[in-house]
Amino acid sequence: MKKVAIIMGSASDREAVLPAAKQLKELGVPFEWRIMSAHRTPDAAAEFSARARENGFGAIIAAAGMAAHLAGAAAARTTLPVIALPLRGGMLDGLDALLASVQMPPGIPVATVAVGGAKNAALLACQILSVEDKELAEKLDALRREAADTIAQKDKELQRQDI
Amino acid sequence: MKKVAIIMGSASDREAVLPAAKQLKELGVPFEWRIMSAHRTPDAAAEFSARARENGFGAIIAAAGMAAHLAGAAAARTTLPVIALPLRGGMLDGLDALLASVQMPPGIPVATVAVGGAKNAALLACQILSVEDKELAEKLDALRREAADTIAQKDKELQRQDI
Amino acid sequence: MKKVAIIMGSASDREAVLPAAKQLKELGVPFEWRIMSAHRTPDAAAEFSARARENGFGAIIAAAGMAAHLAGAAAARTTLPVIALPLRGGMLDGLDALLASVQMPPGIPVATVAVGGAKNAALLACQILSVEDKELAEKLDALRREAADTIAQKDKELQRQDI
Amino acid sequence: MKKVAIIMGSASDREAVLPAAKQLKELGVPFEWRIMSAHRTPDAAAEFSARARENGFGAIIAAAGMAAHLAGAAAARTTLPVIALPLRGGMLDGLDALLASVQMPPGIPVATVAVGGAKNAALLACQILSVEDKELAEKLDALRREAADTIAQKDKELQRQDI
Amino acid sequence: MKKVAIIMGSASDREAVLPAAKQLKELGVPFEWRIMSAHRTPDAAAEFSARARENGFGAIIAAAGMAAHLAGAAAARTTLPVIALPLRGGMLDGLDALLASVQMPPGIPVATVAVGGAKNAALLACQILSVEDKELAEKLDALRREAADTIAQKDKELQRQDI
Amino acid sequence: MKKVAIIMGSASDREAVLPAAKQLKELGVPFEWRIMSAHRTPDAAAEFSARARENGFGAIIAAAGMAAHLAGAAAARTTLPVIALPLRGGMLDGLDALLASVQMPPGIPVATVAVGGAKNAALLACQILSVEDKELAEKLDALRREAADTIAQKDKELQRQDI
Amino acid sequence: MKKVAIIMGSASDREAVLPAAKQLKELGVPFEWRIMSAHRTPDAAAEFSARARENGFGAIIAAAGMAAHLAGAAAARTTLPVIALPLRGGMLDGLDALLASVQMPPGIPVATVAVGGAKNAALLACQILSVEDKELAEKLDALRREAADTIAQKDKELQRQDI
Amino acid sequence: MKKVAIIMGSASDREAVLPAAKQLKELGVPFEWRIMSAHRTPDAAAEFSARARENGFGAIIAAAGMAAHLAGAAAARTTLPVIALPLRGGMLDGLDALLASVQMPPGIPVATVAVGGAKNAALLACQILSVEDKELAEKLDALRREAADTIAQKDKELQRQDI
Repeated sequence: MKKVAIIMGSASDREAVLPAAKQLKELGVPFEWRIMSAHRTPDAAAEFSARARENGFGAIIAAAGMAAHLAGAAAARTTLPVIALPLRGGMLDGLDALLASVQMPPGIPVATVAVGGAKNAALLACQILSVEDKELAEKLDALRREAADTIAQKDKELQRQDI
Repeated sequence: MKKVAIIMGSASDREAVLPAAKQLKELGVPFEWRIMSAHRTPDAAAEFSARARENGFGAIIAAAGMAAHLAGAAAARTTLPVIALPLRGGMLDGLDALLASVQMPPGIPVATVAVGGAKNAALLACQILSVEDKELAEKLDALRREAADTIAQKDKELQRQDI
Repeated sequence: MKKVAIIMGSASDREAVLPAAKQLKELGVPFEWRIMSAHRTPDAAAEFSARARENGFGAIIAAAGMAAHLAGAAAARTTLPVIALPLRGGMLDGLDALLASVQMPPGIPVATVAVGGAKNAALLACQILSVEDKELAEKLDALRREAADTIAQKDKELQRQDI
Repeated sequence: MKKVAIIMGSASDREAVLPAAKQLKELGVPFEWRIMSAHRTPDAAAEFSARARENGFGAIIAAAGMAAHLAGAAAARTTLPVIALPLRGGMLDGLDALLASVQMPPGIPVATVAVGGAKNAALLACQILSVEDKELAEKLDALRREAADTIAQKDKELQRQDI
Repeated sequence: MKKVAIIMGSASDREAVLPAAKQLKELGVPFEWRIMSAHRTPDAAAEFSARARENGFGAIIAAAGMAAHLAGAAAARTTLPVIALPLRGGMLDGLDALLASVQMPPGIPVATVAVGGAKNAALLACQILSVEDKELAEKLDALRREAADTIAQKDKELQRQDI
Repeated sequence: MKKVAIIMGSASDREAVLPAAKQLKELGVPFEWRIMSAHRTPDAAAEFSARARENGFGAIIAAAGMAAHLAGAAAARTTLPVIALPLRGGMLDGLDALLASVQMPPGIPVATVAVGGAKNAALLACQILSVEDKELAEKLDALRREAADTIAQKDKELQRQDI
Repeated sequence: MKKVAIIMGSASDREAVLPAAKQLKELGVPFEWRIMSAHRTPDAAAEFSARARENGFGAIIAAAGMAAHLAGAAAARTTLPVIALPLRGGMLDGLDALLASVQMPPGIPVATVAVGGAKNAALLACQILSVEDKELAEKLDALRREAADTIAQKDKELQRQDI
Repeated sequence: MKKVAIIMGSASDREAVLPAAKQLKELGVPFEWRIMSAHRTPDAAAEFSARARENGFGAIIAAAGMAAHLAGAAAARTTLPVIALPLRGGMLDGLDALLASVQMPPGIPVATVAVGGAKNAALLACQILSVEDKELAEKLDALRREAADTIAQKDKELQRQDI
């Protein structure tokens, strides 16, 4: 089974990225998480991305805030799908990171999720791996059914509450 | 080989979506393109998405503008990767469509590309299929090398020009 | 008398929606409130909306945040007036939910109130029902006069205060 | 049958408002359209709104741009549903008019549609009248079915086209 | 000497408006402050503004937030200078109130100060009265010299501090 | 009678400023217009503003775009009322100039009008002068009545038009 | 004398960058201009920047639009001053490029000029070189005096024109 | 060795500016910091800037918020490089200060860093001085290597942590 890489630009991003790691662990999808910066350790980021496919990765999640270049820097070196996870913290509270991530030039796509959407970044990576992995697809479908059941349950509880 | 679906909310989106279709055709990736609206033909959109995996699709590109709900409506019915292609035309000239696409709730991810980024939407779909398809991965790498060569060539030409 | 439906995408929206329920209760307008998600329980939301008119509803208030699709999903299935109540919480602190709600395509209107405007959503529903209900119209007029009297009273108090 | 009022702040808004008038005419819903300005003829606007219910109106559509006060000025004088139709033309190209329309204080709701959404403003007025008017509800449902059929037809045509 | 009027839309605006009242008091400029709402007591606001000149006022400061219509409503009824004081609290944290205040149609100007700029609103009113009032002009000049001296003093203190 | 000064940062602003000059001329209010730049001729701008009161001016209109500093630079040197007229042309199409104009620090107010609101800038200057000038106040009232009559006339014409 | 480097991400940026080259040429400052992309030729961009100081450059101007990473990519490899020149063309018409350029993490500064400010980017590079180059400083002062004279001349011409 | 000037508009900006002073001190670069306001002590600011070059300065860092005119006012009087440090606190939380700083007219460049980027403002000043100062260039390179080592160390620690 292919692995998922989670790369982040700073050790301080660990908390924001943690829900992605937990979601992958819960679904039994192997992953590695690494700290490497597009601006402070550009060679490490470039080399990791260039070798990601041959090293057994199937998707890269790149988390960064402000002038969020990490996903773009990774995408510049690989044709694996790169998922950009914009983080809060810049002047526009994440909108800046979102725009710096999503607006890639033609030829170098990046798959962007919501600001702070670590869980969805992990699920998207799993959905990508599920295209050729039936077992994982079934696990993802089961997660969806659980979420729907929870909402139906909450709806019933609401009816029993006073206003 | 898995197919790619391109769905759009209106016949008037055809031109904006065309570069995606052309890119898929150029790379020899099979695809279908369809018009179905989250608001005007919601049942058609729901059913298409729900059956996309069993019908041989590996990724869905959903193009929409303004209150862009089509990608979300598709993602609500499948665990295949859904790529949101926001289109220009709303009050914030595409930023509204981008935000309406990317900010999905936890559990239902969507992979968003730049506003008007039809070519990149197609390349992202290919990169997703390339995870388990070596031949397609090689084609994508070749495209990258061609783009780099073009830039190096343009750089040389620039040196020969007067200011 | 027609009923008002209040639908919300998540149990966590209950507090934000509560002022709408209280306002309806205060005015003696019958209502139901339900949890159903455009993305996590799309079939439930679709069916509820499609049958709302025959089930005795006269207006639907749909509360949602971020990529706020719930009002649009409801409006896609009924020709009853649907009132969108955008909630805070997304990247633009509600402006995103407002735009995702209000920018509907031609043919599928939604009546949008201010972000977090739960009380006004309920009053708008009542104003809609008041078109053919004189008694309710009189209650609404009385509410207005009370608000004006309160302001006039506060104005007098201000004159008696030191700076 | 109740009438719909369309009020606009300037004669130059006529073109932007026209699709609303045409939609009402097409559906056979009686209406009047008037020019009155919240800032230049404030007394006329106040009096018209205050008497709208007794004069047989069931909804008021108020179209204005920039610091769009007309819908609010009307809503301040009536408990009939007031639909704000924000127009393009201000500094934020309509977003300013949208915000000036939608952000009403508690107690004085306004039902806002998209910037430039004249057709939807008219349809929303009709949906409001349809709550107690079965015939009009059926006409609105028929319009929806026609729109869905058009999309299904366009979808078929797309399949026959070359790329 | 002409008086200055300070009008606000809600008793809850008192704190935000207080620095204006204090500045006027400090400079010995007579003023009245009143609560009246463009939406909840529109007649009171209209009448007060229409009679402001004959009642001895030389300028009106109108404080409001969100869809801030109060300054415009006042300006619609008088040719006295109306100073708009936008308040924080709407969706864009005051930018919305600023835009709803400043973007008046040709013919009905409003003099807008910064969001929350109560002190400057009062000083602007004084500067307006100072055009024909030498004594007040001298007081304003003295205030400026004091502010400059304070800064020069702080500059000297900074040089004596360690880093 | 006091004069009005119109200052602009560049000769290319002449067209944008012209409606202000014309409005002043139409009302018979004496004025001078000058080109002086906060950045390119800062000494000229400083000296003009510092002597404006003694030179017989009653108000200064300062027109500038982008990082619009001219109104602030003038206001820093005089306690006469300074009217900022933000011009289109920057990155946010005038919103940047509006914010750079309006957000002055406490103690140095500026009276800001809408972006491109040259006519209103002139009318505001006149309203300021009208505080102690009855004749001018009557002229301004007459202008308002004419505008209202025009709208009432257009409203009648609209009723005679076909849709 | 140190040289200035102008790097751009695409041959299509040539026109936007040209005023910088012309300004450098006019002032007699040696420069090279090159096409290299942070995403499409990342190795070329990295190597050029890493060797810029030893190759005799004193400043690097990096021009890019949208998710403008080029200045950051250059700054990551050198401690020479890097001037970011954001270009129009993205979703927010340059504001996105501005934010993607300016918001660098601590440790890796970039000197950002206005969107489309090619001439100012060149002048800033010259001002940097002028710190240790008296002759260049005098040329820059002369340019300023010429600009001031031009404005004074235009001011005189304005006085002779009719309105 | 040339000195760096840090100027700020208010004593309350001291905390925001402190990281710049500390960074300069750490690198052994001489500097002065001063309080002077573009609006409240415009003459002091003008004179300081006009004489900065002859007084031995090589760069000026100007810190200001809201309608941030200080950098522009300094740049108007010198051809030394002026670094704008926009501060948080205005209506757009720093974006307004950023735009008021960066959008200078052609001829008067300013080098803008991120909102609140005091440390980077100091490093940029040092990088400017390093163009002709090998020793300083080496110190800056050493700082970069330390930062890279820290990240590599944090990356190793992350691998040893449980999720």
